[in-house]
Amino acid sequence: MGHNSFGSALTVTTFGESHGEGLGVVIDGIEAGIKLDCGAIQTEMDRRRPGSNPLGTKRNEKDTVTILSGLYQGLTTGTPLTLVLFNNDQHSSDYVELEKVYRPGHADWTFEQKFGIRDVRGGGRSSGRETSARVAAGAVARQVLESKGIKIFAGTVQVGSVVAEQRNWEESDNFLRCPDRSAAVKMEALIEQVRSEQDSIGGIIECRAQGVPAGLGEPVFDKLDALLAHALMSIGAVKGVQIGDGFSCASMRGSQCNDQRDRNGFLSNHAGGILGGISSGQEIILQAAVKPTPSISLKQKTVDTDNCERILEIKGRHDPCICPRAVVVVESMVALTLLDLFYCAFGRQK
Amino acid sequence: MGHNSFGSALTVTTFGESHGEGLGVVIDGIEAGIKLDCGAIQTEMDRRRPGSNPLGTKRNEKDTVTILSGLYQGLTTGTPLTLVLFNNDQHSSDYVELEKVYRPGHADWTFEQKFGIRDVRGGGRSSGRETSARVAAGAVARQVLESKGIKIFAGTVQVGSVVAEQRNWEESDNFLRCPDRSAAVKMEALIEQVRSEQDSIGGIIECRAQGVPAGLGEPVFDKLDALLAHALMSIGAVKGVQIGDGFSCASMRGSQCNDQRDRNGFLSNHAGGILGGISSGQEIILQAAVKPTPSISLKQKTVDTDNCERILEIKGRHDPCICPRAVVVVESMVALTLLDLFYCAFGRQK
Amino acid sequence: MGHNSFGSALTVTTFGESHGEGLGVVIDGIEAGIKLDCGAIQTEMDRRRPGSNPLGTKRNEKDTVTILSGLYQGLTTGTPLTLVLFNNDQHSSDYVELEKVYRPGHADWTFEQKFGIRDVRGGGRSSGRETSARVAAGAVARQVLESKGIKIFAGTVQVGSVVAEQRNWEESDNFLRCPDRSAAVKMEALIEQVRSEQDSIGGIIECRAQGVPAGLGEPVFDKLDALLAHALMSIGAVKGVQIGDGFSCASMRGSQCNDQRDRNGFLSNHAGGILGGISSGQEIILQAAVKPTPSISLKQKTVDTDNCERILEIKGRHDPCICPRAVVVVESMVALTLLDLFYCAFGRQK
Amino acid sequence: MGHNSFGSALTVTTFGESHGEGLGVVIDGIEAGIKLDCGAIQTEMDRRRPGSNPLGTKRNEKDTVTILSGLYQGLTTGTPLTLVLFNNDQHSSDYVELEKVYRPGHADWTFEQKFGIRDVRGGGRSSGRETSARVAAGAVARQVLESKGIKIFAGTVQVGSVVAEQRNWEESDNFLRCPDRSAAVKMEALIEQVRSEQDSIGGIIECRAQGVPAGLGEPVFDKLDALLAHALMSIGAVKGVQIGDGFSCASMRGSQCNDQRDRNGFLSNHAGGILGGISSGQEIILQAAVKPTPSISLKQKTVDTDNCERILEIKGRHDPCICPRAVVVVESMVALTLLDLFYCAFGRQK
Repeated sequence: MGHNSFGSALTVTTFGESHGEGLGVVIDGIEAGIKLDCGAIQTEMDRRRPGSNPLGTKRNEKDTVTILSGLYQGLTTGTPLTLVLFNNDQHSSDYVELEKVYRPGHADWTFEQKFGIRDVRGGGRSSGRETSARVAAGAVARQVLESKGIKIFAGTVQVGSVVAEQRNWEESDNFLRCPDRSAAVKMEALIEQVRSEQDSIGGIIECRAQGVPAGLGEPVFDKLDALLAHALMSIGAVKGVQIGDGFSCASMRGSQCNDQRDRNGFLSNHAGGILGGISSGQEIILQAAVKPTPSISLKQKTVDTDNCERILEIKGRHDPCICPRAVVVVESMVALTLLDLFYCAFGRQK
Repeated sequence: MGHNSFGSALTVTTFGESHGEGLGVVIDGIEAGIKLDCGAIQTEMDRRRPGSNPLGTKRNEKDTVTILSGLYQGLTTGTPLTLVLFNNDQHSSDYVELEKVYRPGHADWTFEQKFGIRDVRGGGRSSGRETSARVAAGAVARQVLESKGIKIFAGTVQVGSVVAEQRNWEESDNFLRCPDRSAAVKMEALIEQVRSEQDSIGGIIECRAQGVPAGLGEPVFDKLDALLAHALMSIGAVKGVQIGDGFSCASMRGSQCNDQRDRNGFLSNHAGGILGGISSGQEIILQAAVKPTPSISLKQKTVDTDNCERILEIKGRHDPCICPRAVVVVESMVALTLLDLFYCAFGRQK
Repeated sequence: MGHNSFGSALTVTTFGESHGEGLGVVIDGIEAGIKLDCGAIQTEMDRRRPGSNPLGTKRNEKDTVTILSGLYQGLTTGTPLTLVLFNNDQHSSDYVELEKVYRPGHADWTFEQKFGIRDVRGGGRSSGRETSARVAAGAVARQVLESKGIKIFAGTVQVGSVVAEQRNWEESDNFLRCPDRSAAVKMEALIEQVRSEQDSIGGIIECRAQGVPAGLGEPVFDKLDALLAHALMSIGAVKGVQIGDGFSCASMRGSQCNDQRDRNGFLSNHAGGILGGISSGQEIILQAAVKPTPSISLKQKTVDTDNCERILEIKGRHDPCICPRAVVVVESMVALTLLDLFYCAFGRQK
Repeated sequence: MGHNSFGSALTVTTFGESHGEGLGVVIDGIEAGIKLDCGAIQTEMDRRRPGSNPLGTKRNEKDTVTILSGLYQGLTTGTPLTLVLFNNDQHSSDYVELEKVYRPGHADWTFEQKFGIRDVRGGGRSSGRETSARVAAGAVARQVLESKGIKIFAGTVQVGSVVAEQRNWEESDNFLRCPDRSAAVKMEALIEQVRSEQDSIGGIIECRAQGVPAGLGEPVFDKLDALLAHALMSIGAVKGVQIGDGFSCASMRGSQCNDQRDRNGFLSNHAGGILGGISSGQEIILQAAVKPTPSISLKQKTVDTDNCERILEIKGRHDPCICPRAVVVVESMVALTLLDLFYCAFGRQK
């Protein structure tokens, strides 16, 4: 399978660079006969879009989805569904000065080591903009999952040292989708402060999936949690993934961590809805650690392609915290993983 | 690809149950002409073996590796290398009483939901014993990697609330492979205490890979960190994975987290040796959160297959902390991932 | 892997329907730094294009390739190369009358059985037009192969009962690419006659690959000949594939069929350049049987979607023999297969 | 996916060499709860076994299947089913004299080119004995298919110039499984004559699958016919594959080749039960061209590993025509392909 593809029974392949002609995704394996709500796809795109929230960059990209294939009279045909975002407004000139410099925290150095060549315009293929294609695919997957009673949502639960203590998801109508209103206010204030200091900050996103039937995932290498970890860690900003109690398990006893049962079902959900790599029918709970945006205006030491030392100050419009926009990317990757496993288990033909 | 397989250019497929005829692994893609040191494979097996350390179970399984195929006159042939561990000493009778009960923290419930059938003997396919086949494959991969100058080692860096402050890897000659001798002593004491309380405890394992060339991994879905997360999260006991600073990134600033450079190279390694999903040539550093062993002797609430409530006390010989034995499993999965990517990049023919 | 993808180390994924917005291909795995000759890609497209030869349909589609991604300053970047053919001139109205009828020899019936839905416009995804995306990908693969000294060419060697007796490839500058000039004249006359009778006719295409190094292909399921058979049989019109002496082997003795050797190499090439599934360094020779175009104007019995019997006369502009245009599709599939195996063996990084 | 694996939703991986410790197969993806008839597996093994028919070699291998994993209380568990054939009676010494010589028509030369090393004992991995593992897997797949009403059978329809004119499958109770009794007698006489001349001869095997539901296969690269061609061409002796009318299509008109319909269904089956790569619900019909056994006692020119010219006379016990034993291998590969596609379409969980 190509390295730009994800999934087995449902395979998504993304293509395109930040400042090329366009980005897109081929979704191969969606069942036929699904009525797509194109407006709902666009709504998800807008959640990821730069400029969509006051906490982030002022860049304003229009991520308008064009459907190239796979839809006939509004219904999926069972053949590849291709969604494209044409790039209209590329400020490639912004990047001329970066052409010969390796930006700290970016893939500039490693790309050049691997390929011997590098598309300097906005990071090329390693740009966060690649995730727009995933969100488009995820929006489709979520529509199909919803028709099966599966619902996915995520929110920011930590920014810097501000931690959400509550999980009041009905309060998550803030820009961070934080399920704790008072924490959200503090997080927003912290992000503003960090921005004023020309720096950036990290956070943690939590995602939940409800209505997942028991039995998804495979016992060994393709455990549901292994595939979810693969999915989330393939997002550039993510440096850690945990399921259920995750790293907290390190300091727990078995008697605390095991989910006991009575006749009405499980008495707790420390496992995050997955046992032995297979969904248990409980809510699936996972978290992703998001690193601070590497593009900051503070001075940084680096070298150029001639290995001469340089002091770099990155100009332009960057997000001081990527969490508000990454929430929908996390939801998308979880949706693609779950729909893939659903088709693996139950097929896609009636 | 089968759900019991892992890898792309190098594919390993494990098979077998805890108490069946045997377990094994087919390793497909190893280059031809490698002289295998079978003694070294057995040494790795012994590290994972129950009864190999005084901290764990007193069960004493003999994990003797038989090579069924792929070796001719001591050299790999380039065709599938198959290693089998025949089960000699199965105490299936131990499990008769568990036949109708779902053990908390185990895959009993989810297996039955998925397959409608369950091998009750020692967890069948979901037993930790399946990882012995991975260790056998990992031992082969490590020999090949070492011939390319790549070295992998891991150790326990947390048990309960005891955290290793040092990374003196030359001190890791203890049962936990902990790189901090004084922490190791406290960890061992804690494990003994937990055992005496008929409970179990979790921990954190850290793994490092040295000598990895820059350029391994792919920019999007098959990022090196995504594949490593998949690999480690496919180990039953692992509930979280982090690369470099991992979850600590949530409370860091970009100015702290970015690895700056001068003409001699990177000035830090917060990224854990991976940038944009591609190895940078620095040391690769990752951690796995290990949950407490679910098999404990303390009383637990559960139900049986008729959904009648039951109080369970698991007898027998179980590890109060699985970290000492899981260290080599973590090393093995990292080795298999790296060799796979090495072959993806550079091929396996001369 | 998605069902619309082909290949392992080099994966091509095609998308799009005959009369949708466009067709395209994502080529994942091409090495970085290859200078693409876009004019040469267009030349191959023109060979497949309807209206490109006087023997075929008078429809005149413009197959202009747009490169959406993967190229920077004229060089491949190592990331997905996406080529798109936008459909400008869709006569969907031509197909309204076919909407409710199953055309004999077409996929209309089976598509509807599988997907419960059917894009009636020009066959949708099952249209021969899908192969234009393969030709675009094949043109890229051929450029890379040529840089490695591997050359691929094909021609028509049979139409109806007219068989090419010669293999004078320098004579293949006719519309059928037939390597026997006198046979070509007879074939063309036969095609004209069949057209005047409102019927169609089949043929055989032979393909050769020169300069293929020994060692490509794998010993068991991924034999070079198995992958080539998969590749060619995935072309809609192809109903048979043979390697070297192929079906003639049925009536041969071992003493005739075996390729003996002396110190200068093989003394014959009955095997078609492949032994035990692995290339021998000899010329690779294979043939594909091409069925008569199913769209004919003669009256045919069929049923409509209400299972009422109908007499069908297909109007419009169809090729009486698809061989002239299928030659380049065969070459393309062979090229994609060989480059995939080349990367499998030798990697794609320097 | 590993190169020694076949299939997608159902993946089989074979391992082992002709004269190593054993051969085997891991079958990953069989649904749980199937009651396996082990005697029926053994019956299929015996059909392929050397010495099973008077037309072939007098070697008498006992192919006794051992089930290593995946079965519990006689039922499949949904986890990998592993079948092994231990080699007891290896006459490796027979091959000492062949150690330094490349046998014409065998993979000796190409293996050494690819791997730089060669297991000389009986061809190692490229031995026809590898197909015994496929027959074991195929026997399992056929049991599952039969429970779904799908029946597969094959027979020899040509040996040398003797062609079966009839398809009276009830007459196929001869060693060649030839569905034409009078042709069978002539074929057997021809094989005896060839044997007496120390030569070998080729043939054609036809396979049919009944009860296959409409809708299996995918429209583009994973066409049912493409996967079947891949499957059959992966058998070492097969040099050509055709579906339905196959190569005869080359000399047919569209008006002859198209399968017309009336309200009761198709009026003919020139397509062999597959339209546009998807099963039509008709009988599936395909043929494989089998080359003459390359091991003959007649003198042949070859070279040794020092490139010195040698005259080779292969001694030992070889089949003058491999068709009688290859019939069951063809059936097995068709069964594995169909069950894989069945699971792709409909899943394997209830």
